Amino acid sequence: MRANRKNDELRNIKFTRHFTKHASGSVLVECGDTKVIVTATVDEKSPKWMDTPSGWVTAEYSLLPSSTNTRVRRERGNNPVSGRTQEIQRLIGRSLRACIDLEKLGERTITIDADVIQADGGTRTASISGGFVALSDAVKKLMDEGLLKENPIIEPVAAISAGILDNQILLDLEYSEDSIADVDANIVMTASGKIVEFQTTAEGNPFSEQQLIELLHTGKKAIFDIIEMQKQALAD
Amino acid sequence: MRANRKNDELRNIKFTRHFTKHASGSVLVECGDTKVIVTATVDEKSPKWMDTPSGWVTAEYSLLPSSTNTRVRRERGNNPVSGRTQEIQRLIGRSLRACIDLEKLGERTITIDADVIQADGGTRTASISGGFVALSDAVKKLMDEGLLKENPIIEPVAAISAGILDNQILLDLEYSEDSIADVDANIVMTASGKIVEFQTTAEGNPFSEQQLIELLHTGKKAIFDIIEMQKQALAD
Amino acid sequence: MRANRKNDELRNIKFTRHFTKHASGSVLVECGDTKVIVTATVDEKSPKWMDTPSGWVTAEYSLLPSSTNTRVRRERGNNPVSGRTQEIQRLIGRSLRACIDLEKLGERTITIDADVIQADGGTRTASISGGFVALSDAVKKLMDEGLLKENPIIEPVAAISAGILDNQILLDLEYSEDSIADVDANIVMTASGKIVEFQTTAEGNPFSEQQLIELLHTGKKAIFDIIEMQKQALAD
Amino acid sequence: MRANRKNDELRNIKFTRHFTKHASGSVLVECGDTKVIVTATVDEKSPKWMDTPSGWVTAEYSLLPSSTNTRVRRERGNNPVSGRTQEIQRLIGRSLRACIDLEKLGERTITIDADVIQADGGTRTASISGGFVALSDAVKKLMDEGLLKENPIIEPVAAISAGILDNQILLDLEYSEDSIADVDANIVMTASGKIVEFQTTAEGNPFSEQQLIELLHTGKKAIFDIIEMQKQALAD
Amino acid sequence: MRANRKNDELRNIKFTRHFTKHASGSVLVECGDTKVIVTATVDEKSPKWMDTPSGWVTAEYSLLPSSTNTRVRRERGNNPVSGRTQEIQRLIGRSLRACIDLEKLGERTITIDADVIQADGGTRTASISGGFVALSDAVKKLMDEGLLKENPIIEPVAAISAGILDNQILLDLEYSEDSIADVDANIVMTASGKIVEFQTTAEGNPFSEQQLIELLHTGKKAIFDIIEMQKQALAD
Amino acid sequence: MRANRKNDELRNIKFTRHFTKHASGSVLVECGDTKVIVTATVDEKSPKWMDTPSGWVTAEYSLLPSSTNTRVRRERGNNPVSGRTQEIQRLIGRSLRACIDLEKLGERTITIDADVIQADGGTRTASISGGFVALSDAVKKLMDEGLLKENPIIEPVAAISAGILDNQILLDLEYSEDSIADVDANIVMTASGKIVEFQTTAEGNPFSEQQLIELLHTGKKAIFDIIEMQKQALAD
Repeated sequence: MRANRKNDELRNIKFTRHFTKHASGSVLVECGDTKVIVTATVDEKSPKWMDTPSGWVTAEYSLLPSSTNTRVRRERGNNPVSGRTQEIQRLIGRSLRACIDLEKLGERTITIDADVIQADGGTRTASISGGFVALSDAVKKLMDEGLLKENPIIEPVAAISAGILDNQILLDLEYSEDSIADVDANIVMTASGKIVEFQTTAEGNPFSEQQLIELLHTGKKAIFDIIEMQKQALAD
Repeated sequence: MRANRKNDELRNIKFTRHFTKHASGSVLVECGDTKVIVTATVDEKSPKWMDTPSGWVTAEYSLLPSSTNTRVRRERGNNPVSGRTQEIQRLIGRSLRACIDLEKLGERTITIDADVIQADGGTRTASISGGFVALSDAVKKLMDEGLLKENPIIEPVAAISAGILDNQILLDLEYSEDSIADVDANIVMTASGKIVEFQTTAEGNPFSEQQLIELLHTGKKAIFDIIEMQKQALAD
Repeated sequence: MRANRKNDELRNIKFTRHFTKHASGSVLVECGDTKVIVTATVDEKSPKWMDTPSGWVTAEYSLLPSSTNTRVRRERGNNPVSGRTQEIQRLIGRSLRACIDLEKLGERTITIDADVIQADGGTRTASISGGFVALSDAVKKLMDEGLLKENPIIEPVAAISAGILDNQILLDLEYSEDSIADVDANIVMTASGKIVEFQTTAEGNPFSEQQLIELLHTGKKAIFDIIEMQKQALAD
Repeated sequence: MRANRKNDELRNIKFTRHFTKHASGSVLVECGDTKVIVTATVDEKSPKWMDTPSGWVTAEYSLLPSSTNTRVRRERGNNPVSGRTQEIQRLIGRSLRACIDLEKLGERTITIDADVIQADGGTRTASISGGFVALSDAVKKLMDEGLLKENPIIEPVAAISAGILDNQILLDLEYSEDSIADVDANIVMTASGKIVEFQTTAEGNPFSEQQLIELLHTGKKAIFDIIEMQKQALAD
Repeated sequence: MRANRKNDELRNIKFTRHFTKHASGSVLVECGDTKVIVTATVDEKSPKWMDTPSGWVTAEYSLLPSSTNTRVRRERGNNPVSGRTQEIQRLIGRSLRACIDLEKLGERTITIDADVIQADGGTRTASISGGFVALSDAVKKLMDEGLLKENPIIEPVAAISAGILDNQILLDLEYSEDSIADVDANIVMTASGKIVEFQTTAEGNPFSEQQLIELLHTGKKAIFDIIEMQKQALAD
Repeated sequence: MRANRKNDELRNIKFTRHFTKHASGSVLVECGDTKVIVTATVDEKSPKWMDTPSGWVTAEYSLLPSSTNTRVRRERGNNPVSGRTQEIQRLIGRSLRACIDLEKLGERTITIDADVIQADGGTRTASISGGFVALSDAVKKLMDEGLLKENPIIEPVAAISAGILDNQILLDLEYSEDSIADVDANIVMTASGKIVEFQTTAEGNPFSEQQLIELLHTGKKAIFDIIEMQKQALAD
């Protein structure tokens, strides 16, 4: 069992809305020492690749060079966007598309930018949870401006990480735990308890079906708590 | 229920070893109309990024332009390697590293190349199942040549896809099913029934915990069948 | 004189049509141990750069990483398409355009993809000879579908390599011969004996006009044999 | 004359040290609505291109996509690092190298990362002024750790923008002013009043020598005020 | 004081018009041992990024690999266009746009190509001075062809470099001087003595306001001389 | 028959040595209106890819943007080095390696840069003929400096283009002829009449063996004339 908090205990989570002024939604999400600026920008066009124009939500993710323990090289010039970055931004996009009715959104594209300014584990799940708040603010602005008549958001969505370390299930891993975990899971769920994404990977030893179910249950409880915090943040 | 086979029935699977002559392991894996050339090439060096030299298994994946329904553009020149390709090759690499003791493998790198010559769904899971056979052949060759004293392979590994379509669980989806499925799962397991990777994604509607467990069970049964076929292929 | 076959003797050549199912033409061409999947895909559009829309035939060429003796790096990401690859695909395209009336082909583009799955010398000439078969199948399909009224193919085209090694003219070089040859030639000809391309290069010592003519004559005889095999394959 | 402040009046400037936890120096610099995270990371190596190893200070600059009025595309993948970005990071690097004795710094490289989270004009000069604070913190840490015996910093450096709009000299332009200015100047000076960089550009109409000198004098006074604020921030 | 010429003395400057035959304006500009081919090519279209179509002048700059002391790598393939090159081409473009009325130029783009065939300091300022001559020839051709009714050129523009070395102001630095100068300045002015660009950089020691003004005055005198030579060249 | 010169007549050819001052060999070669700066730069290292260090000669080729009828885009940034450019620089390199004993050259690399400042057909063959002169000057300098004891040059090499237009054999085609020719040939030969490269391509109609031999003979005579001019140029 870990020292500072229980195995199934979340770190402090905080959503600061209107963190920057230009984007339609702009949230600083903090989850322990992990800090991500998540913004939602609206472009009044469907993506070019769409045959039948409709709404779309897409995401981009990046680590600031100074966000990690040892400086990370910018993914630009000769340094291509890594597979890890691409996996994460595809995950954020899919997760947020699951909570919104794209037809009701109309012919526009919302881009979620998740820029990690300080990383300590769980940056992708924090980006999803914060992304829902930013997306909600962008939708609210469209409704306030009369560009949207009906709210396209179906239900809240949030995400959390879990893992197995020394045969124990741990929730919301810090970097120091994550880097030595045997199993790594990311869980994305809606307020009604439906699963959007469930990804478990054995970095070291394969694991049992029983452990998989425990990971899921541990994450589920935490996600309901995070959705509560999202609601409070959006109510302010 | 689908027309040609039961919902939990596998397509015909076939492993043709020694398909090409240069690589240490070379397998044509066929899964219905999906055909992938999977090879294992040995380089007698650790990867450069490793601090403590040890063995490593990595993977690359590619679709031949003519492998799909409408020609796919080569990922070269101005067309970068897509996020999908990168996700798949990371998945293949992780899955095969889970079945081998990297320290016992010694200071060498085995590269698994999965080149899809005909695609009809399930290319990534076919690549993993075929990859295990190619990897086994490469290891066998190292042992025959006396470069390896002890077999580093821990236990067989195989993979299969499953999904939910019209609220029914389907195994081993063809492209026509996969492209309209609500939920998409990829399951990687070892011969002893341990989970290496389990990824489920709601492309459309989120799903329940009950469905997640059914997906897992359906996949598990199939994986045991595939591992049996791998054994027979390797015994020939 | 070489051990296994005469200096002016071809290796076994085989064309397997309908090798994969998606492309309009799909041929596995084998020339000794060299094996290339050559496909023809039809796009119902002229290329963008054309001022006066008309038909076009273009080609792409690639070596699978495991096709060669020592694994070749994929030409993607930071590894650009090599000069060798570009030379080969330009040669294949020019050679096949010489056997077809582009105006009669109409406003469509046929892309020939030559993907080498096993390399043992002569991959570019095998791609041209196989490319003619794939192109013929694609044209046949267009005619069967009523999209083309008149056959645009002018006459068959095929290609072969020749070289000079230890002052002897050799036909259809294997990799072990090609890599130490003094002179390297590629000859592309039509069924009526007209020259489409003739390229000779002194890798080592320059050569005489007499030798150049011998290279041409040796190749010509072989090309007529290959054109015969193409006809038989297309008749099946 | 502008409405909210005098033509030669600075916007509110604020330096928040220790803004993130991983870098040796980490400062949030705010200048009106312009907000930049500037960090200093130490690498205990000279740059590879140096013939005679010595200390080095280099800089990278980036706009977060959501930092501007309309979302800016990330400079990655097919979108290369722009000329503007390169000019700015070269300017920041040169300016900060002017305030430090590189030989005394020893064989190490300090990278200044300036990531703009909100842009409203003057991001490059804010990055320089904030960069000096981050650099000072990094140097202080090296001295506290005993890695440096002698302080290599020569004297403080700061920067400000000025411009000409409707024939009036304006200090510290906001984006709305900057985008329509006739002349644009950036001034970098040391605490002793020496000039490090002085760049004036006529975006519209060329200007007189008299105006050039006025731009310089207006900037000089402001820079002394900023250097005072840097000192207070570093004293806290 | 330097040996071969006075500190404020220009090197020999020569403009050879009609140096190559295809471009509308083509000038070889020589400034001592610095030799640059500067051409002006007219494209009868506005740039795509322009919202309100109008005329535009843009510039590209390149060093031939053999133009410098030790061969420079071409900026192509994996070697991106350097920050230095981008700064220079932006400077040339801005400087030449300052001497022409873009609305009068009409909906066309003039591209100035400055290709340095031999470099010995001052290549960017030689490119600007030569660029004015090439631009004038291109405009003259447009007028001769009746495509332009009114001359859009406002007044001549020219440029020169200056620097501080061993506390002395030097004009028109050669490479051997430039590479060890403490301060480096580039001055762009019009025939009426207006400043278009003034950039001073302390490569080594910061400098005083008095020195800045001396740099400006030294450059101004030289620019008037160069403008005289441009006039003579254009009169031939 | 063409108007200005006989079908088998060369255009005016001129070699200007010492055209620029930095490279070991620097030649302006003019062939009618085609003008190429060809330089030879010596690097006292073998290429990295060589297993057994020895001498090497390599080539790079580029068109200045203003060298052609309509401006060509620079091959940099998002515009990759074209297949045409790569073919040409490989041809120049192979041709010049054929005239030099690489072992005698010793562990050094000579880079031939061919930069076309004005193009009117035959730029690749002019680059080879001029390249031999530049290479000879670089070798002479190495011998003068005592870095080479024995002259590694075996015999002179030169190149010329020929073609078939309206069924007539033409020598040394201008751009206006080349762009409509049916057949295009490039011939590289040594002073002793040995063939280094012979490439013929039917751009339009395939051609006969008789025509191939005529192309060769026409080129041979011209090459002997060019080699005479090279000798005179090198004797000056």
